[in-house]
Amino acid sequence: MNNIEALKNKLPCTVEIFPDRVRIIDQSLLPQKLVRLDLQTVDEVVTVIKTMRVRGAQAIGAAGIGGMYLAARQAHGTHQAIMQQLQTAAYRLTRETRPTAVNLSWGVNKMLAAAAQAANQQVEKVLYMAARQILEAEVRNNQQIGQHGKELITSDMTILTHCNAGSLSSIWYGTATAPLFAAKDEGHNFTVLVDETRPQLQGSRLTAWEFKQVGIDFRIIVDGAAGSLMKAKRVSAVLVGADRIAANGDVANKIGTYPLAVLARENQIPFYVAAVEATIDRAMPTGEGIPIENRPTEDFWRYLQADFFDQSLPTLNPAFDITPAKYITKIITEKGILDPGKISAV
Amino acid sequence: MNNIEALKNKLPCTVEIFPDRVRIIDQSLLPQKLVRLDLQTVDEVVTVIKTMRVRGAQAIGAAGIGGMYLAARQAHGTHQAIMQQLQTAAYRLTRETRPTAVNLSWGVNKMLAAAAQAANQQVEKVLYMAARQILEAEVRNNQQIGQHGKELITSDMTILTHCNAGSLSSIWYGTATAPLFAAKDEGHNFTVLVDETRPQLQGSRLTAWEFKQVGIDFRIIVDGAAGSLMKAKRVSAVLVGADRIAANGDVANKIGTYPLAVLARENQIPFYVAAVEATIDRAMPTGEGIPIENRPTEDFWRYLQADFFDQSLPTLNPAFDITPAKYITKIITEKGILDPGKISAV
Repeated sequence: MNNIEALKNKLPCTVEIFPDRVRIIDQSLLPQKLVRLDLQTVDEVVTVIKTMRVRGAQAIGAAGIGGMYLAARQAHGTHQAIMQQLQTAAYRLTRETRPTAVNLSWGVNKMLAAAAQAANQQVEKVLYMAARQILEAEVRNNQQIGQHGKELITSDMTILTHCNAGSLSSIWYGTATAPLFAAKDEGHNFTVLVDETRPQLQGSRLTAWEFKQVGIDFRIIVDGAAGSLMKAKRVSAVLVGADRIAANGDVANKIGTYPLAVLARENQIPFYVAAVEATIDRAMPTGEGIPIENRPTEDFWRYLQADFFDQSLPTLNPAFDITPAKYITKIITEKGILDPGKISAV
Repeated sequence: MNNIEALKNKLPCTVEIFPDRVRIIDQSLLPQKLVRLDLQTVDEVVTVIKTMRVRGAQAIGAAGIGGMYLAARQAHGTHQAIMQQLQTAAYRLTRETRPTAVNLSWGVNKMLAAAAQAANQQVEKVLYMAARQILEAEVRNNQQIGQHGKELITSDMTILTHCNAGSLSSIWYGTATAPLFAAKDEGHNFTVLVDETRPQLQGSRLTAWEFKQVGIDFRIIVDGAAGSLMKAKRVSAVLVGADRIAANGDVANKIGTYPLAVLARENQIPFYVAAVEATIDRAMPTGEGIPIENRPTEDFWRYLQADFFDQSLPTLNPAFDITPAKYITKIITEKGILDPGKISAV
């Protein structure tokens, strides 16, 4: 595992929980600047999630967990009073931020459950320990995804990925990047085509930055170029993350994922999704019910040269789409490589 | 035709030929600035095509025609000598510019044919008249596309378009926009979803600007959003232009067109291509043989906020893709609405 430790030195930890604060990387400024933000209140956590300073399903889950710990630090009164204050924080963290990724409510609920079992004077301490443990377990889960998923990656392959399901989107190690990092560790020399992923350009800003740090060979493409590269047999497999997986295996992920899945099937290319169990929403029967966030029009223009665009023009800016299970070859989780239809049995 | 004349006042002419110069709109600066460039040499025409100051299949065809007239102005000697000088200009205009759109060689060849039949002292005058006539005929052809294509457009429809196959891409009136302008003239109130069309953003820069000028209702989307909007039945039809159509009906068009065609078929949405006869390359049996231009990496970053991106990162930047005829519902030309398989009979 020497190489995995080496990787830790090349990529920063996205969300860290300290006794007096939650520390995140401000991903909206990458790769221009690597700025860390120290958060001390639930308000601050809500804001950094909403403004996408922290983004990525697992990372916002981790930030929500951190937010619950910060809420516990400020809570007071009887156990019942503390639980009410935590429930208010939970509501804010899950309802006033972003609706699509389920990891956020997963993490917040884990923290509520831990608090419910703690003694009155122990809630803060219990939630601190719980938060650290959950985050550490998630990193191990990502490493397991890597161990399972690396079997799918060999030298000479060209993997197409979309958005950032990398170390930055998680706490560390990533989900869709985990098999790539693990295969790289074993000496496989593959190439990754990185969809730039408009409008927030998580591909060209974040995924490309990670691959450069780690030394993985890549080329950035515009999202519209993926199709003809698949048709030209220049893509061996598609590998993406997920923001929520419904019980039937339908996957919500960054806008532009569904087209890749359709194009992959049309061109007989395997389409893989990598995600931790926390991304599975067993209460959601199909993808139809997953709420799709519409982002403000400012997001549409943010990374473009302001001079060239009339930012008053009307846009339609959905942040996610749903890929029906029928287009997905396999879902890679910490438990193994699964058929999408069997995902809720995990 | 009052409304069509009114349209002429709202949209500028992209390429104009005057006795002493060729005038183009510098499309790389739109919509920030409407700057016209006066060109007096073949060199200047080659440069504005190569750098995409003039772009769009029909518009670069028109610029090539203008370039041939400028060459004739400077040519001297016997008729044979003049023809040699024109052939050198033709070579430069078609081989040192951009390889995908066939309208350029179509226009240049028309000018060579006109010159071949002219008397020695008349070449310049003949080519001036020929250039003006070809451009006027092309505008009429676009209007005919509008008259045929408007039958496909009714109120309540939402049309998805990609890149700019509008007035700016042509000389005036556009190809894919022609049915929309004509339907608008007749009082139909439809909506257009405008793919922003990375990397050159011809959708959000140019098509959106045209629609705003003309008063057509539109919303801009990122290219990756088209798929899920189709799946959600929020798209009634896709309507795009073409840079070259092979004899079997395969269509070369802006990168990102092929994915739209696959997604349209997957979601049972009609996919229309609008193009003039000059875009049909009967000598090219299938789309496989059409050369696909790779644009320089600078193009990839040009319209992005420079601060946020490491422009030394490797990119892959194909400018066009091929849509096989099987995905195309109909091709709208000045001759009528045709099955793609019958396009070479036009």
